Amino acid sequence: MQKLTVFFVSDHTGVTAEAIGHSLLSQFQALDYQALTVPFIDTPAKAEALAARVRAAMPAMLISTLTDPATRAKLHACEAPMFDVFEAFSEPLAATLGMAPTASPGQTHGMSNSYHGRIDAVNFALAVDDGLNPDRLGEADLILVGVSRAGKTPVSLYLALQYGKKAANYPLTPDDLGAHTLPPVLLAQRAKLRGLTLSAERLSQIRNERLPGSRYASLENCRGEIQAAESMLAASGVPVIDSTHRSVEEIAALIVHAG
Amino acid sequence: MQKLTVFFVSDHTGVTAEAIGHSLLSQFQALDYQALTVPFIDTPAKAEALAARVRAAMPAMLISTLTDPATRAKLHACEAPMFDVFEAFSEPLAATLGMAPTASPGQTHGMSNSYHGRIDAVNFALAVDDGLNPDRLGEADLILVGVSRAGKTPVSLYLALQYGKKAANYPLTPDDLGAHTLPPVLLAQRAKLRGLTLSAERLSQIRNERLPGSRYASLENCRGEIQAAESMLAASGVPVIDSTHRSVEEIAALIVHAG
Repeated sequence: MQKLTVFFVSDHTGVTAEAIGHSLLSQFQALDYQALTVPFIDTPAKAEALAARVRAAMPAMLISTLTDPATRAKLHACEAPMFDVFEAFSEPLAATLGMAPTASPGQTHGMSNSYHGRIDAVNFALAVDDGLNPDRLGEADLILVGVSRAGKTPVSLYLALQYGKKAANYPLTPDDLGAHTLPPVLLAQRAKLRGLTLSAERLSQIRNERLPGSRYASLENCRGEIQAAESMLAASGVPVIDSTHRSVEEIAALIVHAG
Repeated sequence: MQKLTVFFVSDHTGVTAEAIGHSLLSQFQALDYQALTVPFIDTPAKAEALAARVRAAMPAMLISTLTDPATRAKLHACEAPMFDVFEAFSEPLAATLGMAPTASPGQTHGMSNSYHGRIDAVNFALAVDDGLNPDRLGEADLILVGVSRAGKTPVSLYLALQYGKKAANYPLTPDDLGAHTLPPVLLAQRAKLRGLTLSAERLSQIRNERLPGSRYASLENCRGEIQAAESMLAASGVPVIDSTHRSVEEIAALIVHAG
């Protein structure tokens, strides 16, 4: 029998349909399938063309996020099983709320923050990356603080792109770490500070990829830097997140939804 | 009557629950509600604590992506209406597939690509941003090409963070644009090139925010640069995306799913 093709179908970018689809199918570990993401199915005509593709790929299945009932109806015509988030929830939601849904094809169901705010935030993150332009820290929503290679840059970029947060990042250099209190430029923004730490073993591994065998990358040096950084952050009451076993998006979610 | 509180609940970062929730509720434009995202509800104990919070916030409603049935059951005890993606689809999917689902609490339903690949891709995007280190273009999965301020940097960072794609970006300078063919360093990677363009009006507006009243930002200069860039890209058969009315994530999705 031919392998199952699962289409993740969206009227927007497909990121949400793909996330739901992969997650739902991961519950069926024995299932052998190939996945195909099809974004921007935002008119009945595009759905009709896709239905023909699906029929040609049988056996097939669809997991979708299509806001427009007419577009969904055209896709249903392919006769493959179809699981659509809007189809499943729109009516029960309407009954619960006591309101009729209004069709809103093309409604963004990706990132929710204002678009220009996010681009400005990316430009800001790049402008103040790695301690550049410390005079601009006052503009930040958040300032990530930690030793070199603690993972601050990807987190600050993700905070900008996903959440529209202006996140600066400031590396604690060996000079900073020798001073026993956070640099004055950071203490002036204390409420915005968020510490990032990680295990000395992991830091040493990351630094060894960059500068193999260096003192900078040695386990002993990493241990010393991390201890100094953690005690300075604790002394100033800065909340600290351990990134050792967390992904960029998990760290960002913890920061955004903290407290 | 008190305003409705809608909880977007997830056992991971909450990005997917929030996207679905906002999108579903945007169909009810008259609805006045406040939204609260609660990530990392990944144990029955955390769900029990959240159920108490929900009861205290009535009237309330939940839109959730919780993979573990035991965790969902604890949350149901709050008695607010609850719409969960896994609850809705796991059984119908199992029936369609003829397989029993295995519980997989904590299953990532965010970004799907390998974690280290994405961090490497971010570091790569930063290392080759804005035409830096052209000797490394051979390592790229994709190379975004366009005039200055066409939006290449945020798109390359998003391609890295969301899709794990190593995306370089290369600005066509006035010198490049005078040469009538793409620079040799780009032609050597022709299959990886993706053009980004935008309307001259929009480009002029963006550049005026940076350098108000400059020749660089003038509509006439923008129009000339864009015409030269588009004709060079067309001459080499490079696919071009117009970013004027598209968001970063829409452009990235078009690039990733093209063809």
